[in-house]
Amino acid sequence: MRTASYTGDRNIAVGEAEPRPAGTGEVRIAVAYTGLCGTDLHILHGNMDARVTRPLIFGHEMSGTIESVGADVTEWSVGDLVTVMPLDWDGTCPACLAGNSHICQNLNFVGIDSPGSLQQLWTVPAALLVRLPAGIDLQQAALAEPVAVAVHDVRRSELVAGDHTVVVGGGPIGVLIATVARHEGAEVVVIEPEAKRRAQIAELGFTVLDPMATDQVAWVEEWTGGAGADVVFEVSGAAAAVKGTTALAKVRGTIVVVAIHPTPREIDLQRVFWRELRLLGARVYQRTDFERAIELLEQGVIPTEALISSVVPLDGIPAAVEDLENGRALKILVDVAGTPR
Amino acid sequence: MRTASYTGDRNIAVGEAEPRPAGTGEVRIAVAYTGLCGTDLHILHGNMDARVTRPLIFGHEMSGTIESVGADVTEWSVGDLVTVMPLDWDGTCPACLAGNSHICQNLNFVGIDSPGSLQQLWTVPAALLVRLPAGIDLQQAALAEPVAVAVHDVRRSELVAGDHTVVVGGGPIGVLIATVARHEGAEVVVIEPEAKRRAQIAELGFTVLDPMATDQVAWVEEWTGGAGADVVFEVSGAAAAVKGTTALAKVRGTIVVVAIHPTPREIDLQRVFWRELRLLGARVYQRTDFERAIELLEQGVIPTEALISSVVPLDGIPAAVEDLENGRALKILVDVAGTPR
Repeated sequence: MRTASYTGDRNIAVGEAEPRPAGTGEVRIAVAYTGLCGTDLHILHGNMDARVTRPLIFGHEMSGTIESVGADVTEWSVGDLVTVMPLDWDGTCPACLAGNSHICQNLNFVGIDSPGSLQQLWTVPAALLVRLPAGIDLQQAALAEPVAVAVHDVRRSELVAGDHTVVVGGGPIGVLIATVARHEGAEVVVIEPEAKRRAQIAELGFTVLDPMATDQVAWVEEWTGGAGADVVFEVSGAAAAVKGTTALAKVRGTIVVVAIHPTPREIDLQRVFWRELRLLGARVYQRTDFERAIELLEQGVIPTEALISSVVPLDGIPAAVEDLENGRALKILVDVAGTPR
Repeated sequence: MRTASYTGDRNIAVGEAEPRPAGTGEVRIAVAYTGLCGTDLHILHGNMDARVTRPLIFGHEMSGTIESVGADVTEWSVGDLVTVMPLDWDGTCPACLAGNSHICQNLNFVGIDSPGSLQQLWTVPAALLVRLPAGIDLQQAALAEPVAVAVHDVRRSELVAGDHTVVVGGGPIGVLIATVARHEGAEVVVIEPEAKRRAQIAELGFTVLDPMATDQVAWVEEWTGGAGADVVFEVSGAAAAVKGTTALAKVRGTIVVVAIHPTPREIDLQRVFWRELRLLGARVYQRTDFERAIELLEQGVIPTEALISSVVPLDGIPAAVEDLENGRALKILVDVAGTPR
């Protein structure tokens, strides 16, 4: 079978490998599509070299069909449409025992800490499978993982219908959060500095602000009758944006930290204190988020056409990565099955 | 009557003034005791000059007896023992309308934004009064306000019995938070760099760590079986301490920001994200917190003897301020009534 691996120094190797048979409690999936995401870019840039064993078959946003089933797997059959929730927890650490297995203290994130879905026949524990409904478009279904991130972030915010919601950063996750929040009944504004992205987001019917051209604090004050935003999602990863979030939130408002911030960031704690703000970290998803994500995809809530910029073969990954880095694409899918074996 | 005022440039003037009669809806209180607190030091240092109109009769932690009652005051009588919840909200701003009047967007904090309790006859709106039980010691009752802060902070943390709780900073508010948390059934450790304070805190039966001598992260890991603390209270105001809080908290743990941080502080948002931490601002109190504080004082839960370092007359304030600044005292009360008129 064909695979794509990160081999270090920004290099991606497309090669041949022998697929692993499904062991006890495992299934082997014929991978249809794998989406490329921000974490993959971090891996390719070497930012995660301390964590990643090279060569690494990466990829963790996927859809596919069960190709074979190992021993003791009773709930799954060959031909079932599936996606994978790529979290393999130990079940024994304090976080797992407290019911937070999605942030297991010894989490194996499949596709980062172990081989991912950029291989044509991918063997995974059956416990990680999430069922896809018959008839779902497998390209759209490959977005289940990032949609689950957005569902989790919105759920964590405890947002309710009518809430004034600011999404800081209009990349794929920002757009998905805005979409899920709007579907929950929130009033949503997206803040995004890049003109091309702003145009795409506006086409999806969102109000979108250019932070360089608009006084966002004054805008939000006006928008909320002087109260401030109920919920602010920090999805930009930018230091200046983080510092600004506290000025946007209302008294007892919520700021959800979604983006990855590799170094400590300055926060206006005076404002956190003064307005009794709540700042929440939100990481990955729980099974309920994945199931909800698939529902939203099935119901056509997610603007998959606008999000999926292109579909490329395995050997198209290097060019796709360049397009993502330069903001020429939002989401690119790799057609794993369609690449000749 | 005698008064004490901040006149600017770290100066305190003790003088004479004509007491104001109680107007409609007001009462006039014969002030018994007024406690000096960290906010008073901030005022005296000039840190709040942009907010404070000088001369300012300061003071907001107090106990006293109603001396006269204005028109339309039906629930209060001369001789009633009272303390004052020094929050005068407008009732019309978005925060008030949302039920968060204690953090009214146009709050008049009495003793900062308007005259406080360092005057022998203090006229205030009856709406700010909180009843003291007959027979309560008026020195102890003067601690109702800082105890209410601690009650509010602990309530905001949603701490439950058995929670492993770290209090970073062992000043008066830190000690009160530790006391209230322990009374709620929490396991408490206090982190405090000053040896004298550590000794005082240890005498109250708390485990107390010297952050310079102990690896606090390793200590808390060991203490919590590798989980991390359920709740961390940041009461130090120190930049380094803030940065450390995120390393102490468990997965989905809570950090409560109690201290005032005049400049933005670096926060390890990677850890906030990674462990899905919750960081909460906590400011002042609500009426329920004041009432609970008075209950705790009445029940003898609060170690008032250990906290009250001395009781001084009005003209003893400058020396008292020096003692507080140099860590020679935890809490000093001003005997307002006892100062000859």
